[in-house]
Amino acid sequence: MVRGGGFAVSDAYARSGVDVAAGKEAVSRYASLLGQWRHPSQLGGVGGFAGLFQLPGDESRALVASTDGVGTKLLVAAALRRYDTVGADLVNHCVNDILVQNATPLFFLDYFATGKLDPQIAAEVVGGCARACEAHECALLGGETAEMPGIYAPEHFDLAGTIVGIVSRDKLPQSALVEPGDAIVGLPAIGLHTNGYSLARACIDRTEWDEPLGERGTYGDALLAEHPSYYRDVRAIEEVALVKAMAHVTGGGLIENVPRTLPATVKAVFEQSRWSVPPIQTELVRRAHLTHAERYGTLNMGVGYTLVVPLDDAVRAAGAVAGAKIVGWIEERAGDEPQVVVHPSRE
Amino acid sequence: MVRGGGFAVSDAYARSGVDVAAGKEAVSRYASLLGQWRHPSQLGGVGGFAGLFQLPGDESRALVASTDGVGTKLLVAAALRRYDTVGADLVNHCVNDILVQNATPLFFLDYFATGKLDPQIAAEVVGGCARACEAHECALLGGETAEMPGIYAPEHFDLAGTIVGIVSRDKLPQSALVEPGDAIVGLPAIGLHTNGYSLARACIDRTEWDEPLGERGTYGDALLAEHPSYYRDVRAIEEVALVKAMAHVTGGGLIENVPRTLPATVKAVFEQSRWSVPPIQTELVRRAHLTHAERYGTLNMGVGYTLVVPLDDAVRAAGAVAGAKIVGWIEERAGDEPQVVVHPSRE
Repeated sequence: MVRGGGFAVSDAYARSGVDVAAGKEAVSRYASLLGQWRHPSQLGGVGGFAGLFQLPGDESRALVASTDGVGTKLLVAAALRRYDTVGADLVNHCVNDILVQNATPLFFLDYFATGKLDPQIAAEVVGGCARACEAHECALLGGETAEMPGIYAPEHFDLAGTIVGIVSRDKLPQSALVEPGDAIVGLPAIGLHTNGYSLARACIDRTEWDEPLGERGTYGDALLAEHPSYYRDVRAIEEVALVKAMAHVTGGGLIENVPRTLPATVKAVFEQSRWSVPPIQTELVRRAHLTHAERYGTLNMGVGYTLVVPLDDAVRAAGAVAGAKIVGWIEERAGDEPQVVVHPSRE
Repeated sequence: MVRGGGFAVSDAYARSGVDVAAGKEAVSRYASLLGQWRHPSQLGGVGGFAGLFQLPGDESRALVASTDGVGTKLLVAAALRRYDTVGADLVNHCVNDILVQNATPLFFLDYFATGKLDPQIAAEVVGGCARACEAHECALLGGETAEMPGIYAPEHFDLAGTIVGIVSRDKLPQSALVEPGDAIVGLPAIGLHTNGYSLARACIDRTEWDEPLGERGTYGDALLAEHPSYYRDVRAIEEVALVKAMAHVTGGGLIENVPRTLPATVKAVFEQSRWSVPPIQTELVRRAHLTHAERYGTLNMGVGYTLVVPLDDAVRAAGAVAGAKIVGWIEERAGDEPQVVVHPSRE
């Protein structure tokens, strides 16, 4: 289940209006609801980034599906009247979620809902989905556009989507093989992607969004930087390395996401000096006085996707993709030690 | 494409805040966007209630997918604090949409978004989805729960979902076979289902929702009556009749939905004296002074699903399901005649 992906463990988050405890409670109630009945073709997946369903008539393959939304990044897009990027944010997020199961996208369907339908805005939003789908040779198979005065403010909208992909079951990542000594390769995040926006909006006033941040553009540019797809990067690394487990680092950061695909007997140890943190995240850390646990348990902090590979493959894996770095290691985990440790860089 | 299913042709609708012209304009822009690239496995479906995608490795079958939302019926549920029915509304709506392509449900994913997450409400809403999925032996394979302060008011929420089903391509309805003289069997609607709620909320004040309507309950009960699934009804009729074409009568009523699966050379002629209109719709017609075109081009007016069958099969087909009736006929269509004619009953 992707459920809970939208919830992060952070007091700062709670202060910005997102109720973390309520999210965890809802997820636990779903688990009991869903435990009551299972389709015989449902396959247990590792990590819950996506659901697996046996391909009808072919036991060797599985369909892999995931639903996600863009979250309150939409409010930044709406305020800045930039509507052409959130579609790619959504599709790429969904692509990455099923990529954790090594799936290749087949088709996508979007859900666009707004208070007052503006055909031009709708076309820009859905056009962004269409372009990102085409970039993955994924069909944009359908969608729903809903005008719902009363649920959404006239200028507000929501955007969610569902992706369905396919994987050979012998190509599913085998996280059971993960062992102490393996390396973790990280793929670079270019910003917040689609998480942390309630916090960002609470910390960075709208009046600042047109101000410069670093050398590359404004706060607004940094906030709307597109959630990247890691599809081609992962395929390139798989050409040169055995990939045992992967994680998409979304809400909940390294601390919440990496353990979802690790055996309980190991821990992931990250060395933050090995990668750089995007300016927007450094800024959020500073302004919101985020603790260590909040930083790495809320934001991606510069690592958008992780792959566990044998040590012998690590240099080759990191060398296969621009910006990829060896960011940590797998170590033995004793008793109730945390499953993720992040050693911060000197600051 | 299911797009446009949420838009109805009605001045009364426009008066209640839903912009019909904007919906049509958005749909036409999507068409040009989507015409730019097609996946080779995308199959042209008839009618656009759902998208078709060739089952990987099996040319004889297709996956059938559809995304939909519940719409502003959610505002009625939220106001009455009844959260356990909207999940079934959504799942059943989606089941019916792919049923038009004769598909059997495989799996479903939901998207639940709210301003302030209440785990109890979330569990009731998603629990409704789970029960309706189980009733169709359909996996609830995943979902996303999002808390988005700023996009939704604290007590408001949105609920959308995506269904994926399967059909043998030789079982796809063959609407090309529809010919003058065929009969149309209608399955009964029990209320507004999931369309017409912006209008209903504009016409029926919240203070009336606890008042009785007819003998069966209150206005509130009638407004929240569950969108039925026609899955078992259709399967029962297929046992005894050749079904050439079907339509799910959602937003746009008989006038907009029935033509989506008919050849341009025929028209559907309905005799409204052959079925009864639910009290809630009679009430809306009266209060909003709906014209004939508005009634049958906006609301289902008592027919939730239609099946075109040969005349010789019609009595058997209607007899196979409680409440099913022969509601109309297929006639030859000349030139630019309308594709749907509804002869009203005496009133």
